[in-house]
Amino acid sequence: MRPVSIVGTAQIPVQAATQQGLRQLGSQVVRDAMESAGVERVDALFASNMLGDELQGQKHIAALIADESGLAGIEALQVQAAMASGSAALRMGFLAVGSREADLAVIVGVEKMSEGLAMPAMSKALDAREVEDGATLISKNADLMRIYRKRYDVPEDGFVNFPVVAHRNARNNPNALFKDMSVKPRTVMKSRMVHDPLRLLDCSPICDGAAAVVLSPAEEARAHSPHPVRILSSSVATDRFRVGDRPNPLWLEAAQQSAIKAYRQANVHREDIDFFEVHDAFSIMACMQLEAAGFADQGQGWHLAEEKRIELRGDIPITTMGGLKARGHPIGATALYQVSEIVLQLTGRAGKNQVRGAKIGMMQSVGGAGTTVITHILGV
Amino acid sequence: MRPVSIVGTAQIPVQAATQQGLRQLGSQVVRDAMESAGVERVDALFASNMLGDELQGQKHIAALIADESGLAGIEALQVQAAMASGSAALRMGFLAVGSREADLAVIVGVEKMSEGLAMPAMSKALDAREVEDGATLISKNADLMRIYRKRYDVPEDGFVNFPVVAHRNARNNPNALFKDMSVKPRTVMKSRMVHDPLRLLDCSPICDGAAAVVLSPAEEARAHSPHPVRILSSSVATDRFRVGDRPNPLWLEAAQQSAIKAYRQANVHREDIDFFEVHDAFSIMACMQLEAAGFADQGQGWHLAEEKRIELRGDIPITTMGGLKARGHPIGATALYQVSEIVLQLTGRAGKNQVRGAKIGMMQSVGGAGTTVITHILGV
Repeated sequence: MRPVSIVGTAQIPVQAATQQGLRQLGSQVVRDAMESAGVERVDALFASNMLGDELQGQKHIAALIADESGLAGIEALQVQAAMASGSAALRMGFLAVGSREADLAVIVGVEKMSEGLAMPAMSKALDAREVEDGATLISKNADLMRIYRKRYDVPEDGFVNFPVVAHRNARNNPNALFKDMSVKPRTVMKSRMVHDPLRLLDCSPICDGAAAVVLSPAEEARAHSPHPVRILSSSVATDRFRVGDRPNPLWLEAAQQSAIKAYRQANVHREDIDFFEVHDAFSIMACMQLEAAGFADQGQGWHLAEEKRIELRGDIPITTMGGLKARGHPIGATALYQVSEIVLQLTGRAGKNQVRGAKIGMMQSVGGAGTTVITHILGV
Repeated sequence: MRPVSIVGTAQIPVQAATQQGLRQLGSQVVRDAMESAGVERVDALFASNMLGDELQGQKHIAALIADESGLAGIEALQVQAAMASGSAALRMGFLAVGSREADLAVIVGVEKMSEGLAMPAMSKALDAREVEDGATLISKNADLMRIYRKRYDVPEDGFVNFPVVAHRNARNNPNALFKDMSVKPRTVMKSRMVHDPLRLLDCSPICDGAAAVVLSPAEEARAHSPHPVRILSSSVATDRFRVGDRPNPLWLEAAQQSAIKAYRQANVHREDIDFFEVHDAFSIMACMQLEAAGFADQGQGWHLAEEKRIELRGDIPITTMGGLKARGHPIGATALYQVSEIVLQLTGRAGKNQVRGAKIGMMQSVGGAGTTVITHILGV
């Protein structure tokens, strides 16, 4: 494997509902990311989209976006791992460029959740038998939060700083869905109970979005970008598919294994990670990832929020541009937003949300209720 | 890239309708392929399935099959390119092993089309706008056949030997759906008109199936298999998404470009190809691929069938074990059947259908109406 760098990024503002279709959203960020890398042609396009087959009646999305972007002819494939699909597409681009099968690749994530019913479509990431028994992605996360709170004796407002910090950071991110929203602890605690004990502000929103990045060999990165960022490692791990089959439902084994592999490949230690873009689709997931990745002991992750150590000036900043909670979680696009944000942080362009002296950033994507976890570590 | 070999294969008999679900079908061939390679563990699983989200309400299929196979923990991702998904998954495994990110990978394809309505789900490989205008995958192929016949003055029975040869070869393939069916030219011409001018026997069947292969570095292949087969090249190309946007609707530009890249990477010439597993979902597609890959001039591909040059003893044998037409076309699994059959041919284990002295075999998968084409060349 030759080293691989990110040399272009693009994001559109996350929105509650866009007028454009999947193909327009996708091609816009593809062209913008290519323009930011100063390239007119790439060898390959890898696409991430989770719900288009159901919500827009459209499969075969990679070739569609390639065509709409004026790139018909090139390799174009779609990669799926439920809600971790964006990171899966990034990984495939990493393999394609790293293995010399492609010199330039664009990775695009797009999702349009504003049409149709997203939750039943998203719940197909769970075992269909559980869905037949009435489970949804929200009910599974509600179960985890309830069990966690009981086992570790967490007060009702124990998770409240996860959304509070995310929303505060989103206020300085022009691409965040909730950039104009002010969220205080009492806003969270008074928000609607969606699925007990999950309140509305414990959940990431249904929204539309698209983001893309361009990859090149690291040795050519400076030709494309004044501020390239290296992909130091890429790793995927899975867990037992159903939460109920795991020895401990509160432990994200796939998140731990994926992080351990990523630390090893990147040749870094946990202490070297300057910030961590977690997959905070639900507050409980952010908490459990902090534990699995080694930033807190089991059952202690929520203290990192309670003690505000997850803030921009804390010892392990998370959701630095708003996270899934407040930037928004347009499923297939989310990981590409995370990458784009990490690139801003590592190149000193994160504005008021800059994590000082950040050199190494980590991100995780979670598919299903902890079943598939993909970790990337980026560095300058 | 280090060279990559196929060291294990498995297929279940293609069936009109299986009792088992996707997870059982998938895990059965995963375990069988691993057993045939003599391995108890792999580093990664790449899965192909096109319709499970719609027909079985199940996404996230790679992690599900990994778990059901007793492999929870490993990397597991799904790759999609509509009907070319099986080849897309094979390519991802090729990249993972070739780039040294994995030492052993299993590629599994599974499809269960016997539940629900497959054609509307399959038509999502087309532009949703065309589908809204009434197009289906079958109507698009019927259009191509009609235009082709008219432009090149092909008699009504001009394509008849495509299904006749495929069905004859299927009779010696115990895994073929139509292993017991005798098809003569008049059987084809008397078969039901499905969508004028496509008759039933011009179309591949709706069916269930699963197949898998195990990949290892070529240098370690002999440790796993007495008859390893090398992946000499892997390439993807796309065309304009809609047939109507192409300068010539009868020319499969993506098939040509993908084949040219594959010949170059494998360092072979068209004349070196001993047989060609085409994507004969419809007779017209087989014909157009023969032209695009250089085996016939434009408008002349049907003569290869008419003159029986596509038979096992002909100069370019195709569908040697029955092809999509007669072995069956369980979409996501099809390319893995093709690979398994090529391995049998190249290692002299194809029984009565053995292509004599075969050293190099080629396969193509087509997504949509010629939009995505993936070519692999295998050799011993």
